[in-house]
Amino acid sequence: MNTDAALRPEDFRWMGRALELAGRGAGMTSPNPVVGAVLVVAGRAVGEGFHARAGAAHAEAEALGQAGAAARGATLYVTLEPCTHTGRTAPCVDAITTAGVKRVVVAISDPNPRVSGGGAAALSRAGVDVMVGCREREATALNRVFLIAARRGRPHATLKWAATLDGATADARRASRWITGPEARTEGHRMRSRADAVVVGIETALADDPGLDVRLGYPWPREPFRVVVDSRARLPVSARLIGAGKPARALVAITDAADPERLENLETRGVTVLRCKSHEGRVDVSDLVSRLGALDVGGILVEGGGTLAWAFLEAGLVDRVVAFTAPKLLGGASAARALEGTGLRLPEAIRLEGICVRPIGTDWMMEADVVHQGAEA
Amino acid sequence: MNTDAALRPEDFRWMGRALELAGRGAGMTSPNPVVGAVLVVAGRAVGEGFHARAGAAHAEAEALGQAGAAARGATLYVTLEPCTHTGRTAPCVDAITTAGVKRVVVAISDPNPRVSGGGAAALSRAGVDVMVGCREREATALNRVFLIAARRGRPHATLKWAATLDGATADARRASRWITGPEARTEGHRMRSRADAVVVGIETALADDPGLDVRLGYPWPREPFRVVVDSRARLPVSARLIGAGKPARALVAITDAADPERLENLETRGVTVLRCKSHEGRVDVSDLVSRLGALDVGGILVEGGGTLAWAFLEAGLVDRVVAFTAPKLLGGASAARALEGTGLRLPEAIRLEGICVRPIGTDWMMEADVVHQGAEA
Repeated sequence: MNTDAALRPEDFRWMGRALELAGRGAGMTSPNPVVGAVLVVAGRAVGEGFHARAGAAHAEAEALGQAGAAARGATLYVTLEPCTHTGRTAPCVDAITTAGVKRVVVAISDPNPRVSGGGAAALSRAGVDVMVGCREREATALNRVFLIAARRGRPHATLKWAATLDGATADARRASRWITGPEARTEGHRMRSRADAVVVGIETALADDPGLDVRLGYPWPREPFRVVVDSRARLPVSARLIGAGKPARALVAITDAADPERLENLETRGVTVLRCKSHEGRVDVSDLVSRLGALDVGGILVEGGGTLAWAFLEAGLVDRVVAFTAPKLLGGASAARALEGTGLRLPEAIRLEGICVRPIGTDWMMEADVVHQGAEA
Repeated sequence: MNTDAALRPEDFRWMGRALELAGRGAGMTSPNPVVGAVLVVAGRAVGEGFHARAGAAHAEAEALGQAGAAARGATLYVTLEPCTHTGRTAPCVDAITTAGVKRVVVAISDPNPRVSGGGAAALSRAGVDVMVGCREREATALNRVFLIAARRGRPHATLKWAATLDGATADARRASRWITGPEARTEGHRMRSRADAVVVGIETALADDPGLDVRLGYPWPREPFRVVVDSRARLPVSARLIGAGKPARALVAITDAADPERLENLETRGVTVLRCKSHEGRVDVSDLVSRLGALDVGGILVEGGGTLAWAFLEAGLVDRVVAFTAPKLLGGASAARALEGTGLRLPEAIRLEGICVRPIGTDWMMEADVVHQGAEA
């Protein structure tokens, strides 16, 4: 890897184009990352590509295919380190060297231990001039779910809720339809469309009977798993979340405390049962998250209620929080809240960083990253 | 009143100067409004003034005094309709006509029924050309506390709280120091400095022992009343809020349920006791607010806790809400919340409008007006 050579001004510009291409795959590629690639010869793009969905061609392969013989002597701009392993597609490093690419500029290294640094090293060994770290920050932001899942070895989880300004997520009768307006609810569906699994607790499933499906007109890649955390298998077979999509993609996470007859009824209905470890009489959420990871889930969206949300947070499994705030006041000492459970003492409160606030319809959307104690940067 | 003549472009500019002058009295004039005035002759200001504090000269009188004989033939720009009644100062309308002012441009009518429209009419009868409504919106915003107090015939109340993103105002042990950072807390003191009374419930007084005083370096006009709503007079004589300023400006709002001996101890300590009507075993907050109004309180700042805040809201006594949100998560089904009490059902939620969100230090400040059902616009 050539670490002496500096990045040139045009490198930043072309990497911008590669990032733009990568963005076209946003929300569509899980469990893979989004990747964009541009091949440039003499200040002109001769091939472009992006990774469109899991199983489709890699961005580099797309760009090389478009360029054909014109790739000889080109500079390749790619937002993620090219792969060296054979997965559903052939290794990109081989294709790059075979095509005669002379120089490769990479935004970020692949966090996958099977690749990390290896792709760049292999290219270097083959005589290609390689630079890593161009527009690293933007490339990282584009792939936050993929990178966090890779680093932590478990799916990335976003906790989402909608509350009134005074923090009520439902009134004392547990009515929560609707706290926020249509724009915020559409944004909620967009978040579902980008998740691989949408998770609620059984109390929420019983109180609201949510479908947990994606109700959006525009294309989205797959039907996210509709997951209910239901240690005793109390979900009725008539629950909307079973019929809102393929019943097999409705997952009921239970423990040994579940009644066998109820389980049988759910399985007869076509539901997938996930038998999880128990933690203090409830489903062990860490175990649930591992099992979801094994089902190729990269991004989880936790939609509540407060007891489940707290269990995820307490177990250190939440990476991001999205709170919708409606311009309303509900009051009520017994109104529902976003986080219940035992809670923390003030000096030990969980910190959030990178908070971002924006209006959405008549509501406000606040997003932030959870600071994991002692976590790597 | 001349309603045919139109406002001229320079009128908007000069009213801008009058609004700027009015703003210098912000937070200093209660129970009076802030007012600014400019006298203009041939495109030049010959006198300026603003109302600096209750009891000081009116803005018009200041401007006329500065202009002297130069006021003859001038146009007067004034942010509030000139008064016709003799209060602590002589009526401004007489001074204006005596000085020979030819034209008066007013931003808003005086909401005081002893004045409203009368000042403009009196000037008109005296042959002065009068225009009302120039930059009305800005003048209204400057005097929101005064105008709402005048319209509703009771003090304006702002409800303030600080909470984590998940809506906890204290942890399960009732610790709330500090949820927000120093910048937000300074803003809280600025809000106190502009209020005439700062109110807390006895539970908050016992849990936090707050001083309720203004801890700011820069000048502020008066020591706000430090009020505790304490039906049974449980406040200890050692409470910080008694000694944090003049003890007589510590008000303890009680009902007949208060123990006479405890009351005597408080009175011996120099505290002012407000004997209020009772509502469901607690201090009737409407009666308390009337009593504060009788003490010349124009603006009340309600700082919690959740039960008292809910009592104010439920009684329709809250006009504005200011919520500080810290980038933290606390959780806990029994953590304190901004609004407790019985609460409402979701379809009846209290609506907020004109919501304004801004960062303050590492926290966020959200302000909004409470929509009063069936209230005038």
